[in-house]
Amino acid sequence: MPMPVELADIAADVFARIRVRSPRVHCITNSVAQAYTANVLLAAGAVPSMTVAPQEIGAFVVSADALLVNLGTFDSERKAAIDVALATAAETGLRWLLDPVFIERSPGRAQFARELVGRGPAVVRLNQAEFAVLANDPTGDAPARFARVHKAIMALTGAVDLVTDGDRRAKIANGDPLMGLVTAMGCAGSALVCAALTVEADAYLATIAALAAFGVAGERAARNAGGPGSFAAAMIDVLHGLDHAELRAHIKVS
Amino acid sequence: MPMPVELADIAADVFARIRVRSPRVHCITNSVAQAYTANVLLAAGAVPSMTVAPQEIGAFVVSADALLVNLGTFDSERKAAIDVALATAAETGLRWLLDPVFIERSPGRAQFARELVGRGPAVVRLNQAEFAVLANDPTGDAPARFARVHKAIMALTGAVDLVTDGDRRAKIANGDPLMGLVTAMGCAGSALVCAALTVEADAYLATIAALAAFGVAGERAARNAGGPGSFAAAMIDVLHGLDHAELRAHIKVS
Amino acid sequence: MPMPVELADIAADVFARIRVRSPRVHCITNSVAQAYTANVLLAAGAVPSMTVAPQEIGAFVVSADALLVNLGTFDSERKAAIDVALATAAETGLRWLLDPVFIERSPGRAQFARELVGRGPAVVRLNQAEFAVLANDPTGDAPARFARVHKAIMALTGAVDLVTDGDRRAKIANGDPLMGLVTAMGCAGSALVCAALTVEADAYLATIAALAAFGVAGERAARNAGGPGSFAAAMIDVLHGLDHAELRAHIKVS
Repeated sequence: MPMPVELADIAADVFARIRVRSPRVHCITNSVAQAYTANVLLAAGAVPSMTVAPQEIGAFVVSADALLVNLGTFDSERKAAIDVALATAAETGLRWLLDPVFIERSPGRAQFARELVGRGPAVVRLNQAEFAVLANDPTGDAPARFARVHKAIMALTGAVDLVTDGDRRAKIANGDPLMGLVTAMGCAGSALVCAALTVEADAYLATIAALAAFGVAGERAARNAGGPGSFAAAMIDVLHGLDHAELRAHIKVS
Repeated sequence: MPMPVELADIAADVFARIRVRSPRVHCITNSVAQAYTANVLLAAGAVPSMTVAPQEIGAFVVSADALLVNLGTFDSERKAAIDVALATAAETGLRWLLDPVFIERSPGRAQFARELVGRGPAVVRLNQAEFAVLANDPTGDAPARFARVHKAIMALTGAVDLVTDGDRRAKIANGDPLMGLVTAMGCAGSALVCAALTVEADAYLATIAALAAFGVAGERAARNAGGPGSFAAAMIDVLHGLDHAELRAHIKVS
Repeated sequence: MPMPVELADIAADVFARIRVRSPRVHCITNSVAQAYTANVLLAAGAVPSMTVAPQEIGAFVVSADALLVNLGTFDSERKAAIDVALATAAETGLRWLLDPVFIERSPGRAQFARELVGRGPAVVRLNQAEFAVLANDPTGDAPARFARVHKAIMALTGAVDLVTDGDRRAKIANGDPLMGLVTAMGCAGSALVCAALTVEADAYLATIAALAAFGVAGERAARNAGGPGSFAAAMIDVLHGLDHAELRAHIKVS
């Protein structure tokens, strides 16, 4: 049986394990994305927390199972919160994901994202435009090289998602164009990757699992959606009901 | 006719009065919960406002009919805003509810919550884990004792909600498990209690009324929901349409 | 053919052009409104950005096609962000809309709104209560006079919307009462006006187009909505699918 089949099995399994574990995912994310991200995590069986106050974020991160660092809305308070959160994560060995939203629109944010890559994220999830700015080298093989240099899983999402740890490389062909029409959808997908990191030691497999499950949910939610508004709610419904058999049948990883 | 029947009558009546009065409820709440809380209040017939800026919160509280103090996202700005808001509320005799979200995750937040209890909330709404931290004494009779000592209505919500003023004690058996899968649902329930405080002088009855109506709405919204996403929207629809007869028929208070 | 018919044609056309252009709209808005506003813009074919951090808002505004300045949640950080954003907009000639939310509840916010009118918004959108406070003169002809003095389009929204540039004056009779029961609906309508400003040089026509399209969407979304919750999602669905013929058929401008 070829590799792709195994990956689909593993991915379906990882997603199922999230529900069993009920992991705590602390999210540093922008206020636009907070509610939808929390609802996606709850639907998948995880427990979200969202505070960005520097005074108490350490306490939340200490008791979390994974950490999301999303740069949408990047201000001094959030910068301070990220600093405390990452220091705490480094002490406890907590894995975290970097989502450098919109760094192509703000040089200061791009610079901060580059600094954060140096602090050891387990995964960096971003789109092509963001990667081009982060890597300063948008050539074909760059994601794998970037992953090797920074020892992080790179997940470039788009019509087809690319996931690589530098050696291995997978493509995920699930998803629906409606996903691009709901604000915070990508951010919520990143949060789901964090949840997967809590139940799968191999961050490469965890990332594939979460993005593939998210894409399958998007396909099914799109089936009866009347547009992006009903689609956003349907995504939550589908994620909540998604079972191993359905995931296994629809995941397209190669 | 036994007590439970009277309570259900009163509860249905209180909820109906909110729509007649259109009370202004000012909400100090976290950015995760703001939009859903506002929509729940609007659906019930109240007028929400949400600013947390210390510079202008006093003006909003002066013209409000009740105040919600939710500790989710607890930072220095919010602390300053709460201080101004409570000083204003004390001057005008405005009643307020404390919702000490997630204090079991943050010692600093727990300490702040204990200070706030000393400033005279009409109602404290929280879950069992939060109460255990707030009271430092999670024994059976603790909520009633806590209510007597602090002269506040205690509302411990869960599968069954407990409401007590120290002497009286009611259990509300309404609700649906889907309510726990939507972020901000508890926060929105607290806001509804605030709305009820504006139309019912007895804070004990107001609290029962709001939580029972919220639970009945949850039950009916769950009936046709495909999952937590469509359920969240259905809650708003149901709250908007909920009438006295339906409430009266379905409230389970004992 | 009388003027009203021409306006309906132009309005339908402007709305269609937004989808072709995919304009970037930067929104300074309150955290309550951010997600819904972003989803309305995405549904209409625009690209929203939302940061309010003073450190990077200049970079976002430089690459934006229009700017929304909404005063809901008015704090020192947001005040600083607005200052930077408007300075940047003045340099690049970017058009912007002022939405002075709830200024009737906060004298400080009202004073700030009056200062902002002096910085040259292309459009001011507000309701009657807000206008009364902004203009300090709520008489019949005041909107037209205010528009002339301040060289801004005035859009007073309500059961019937009034749009005037001081000389011209249009009434838009589209919309549904459910629109008033969804938080951020008005804010999102203002954002849609910003999107229209990017494709129509005449700000008066752009404003009419956006508000009329928004109202038509509201009417159609209300048709099958079970209440304000499903209505909010249906608005997004309808905006995404709204075509020129349907708009043309239903716009009621006189």
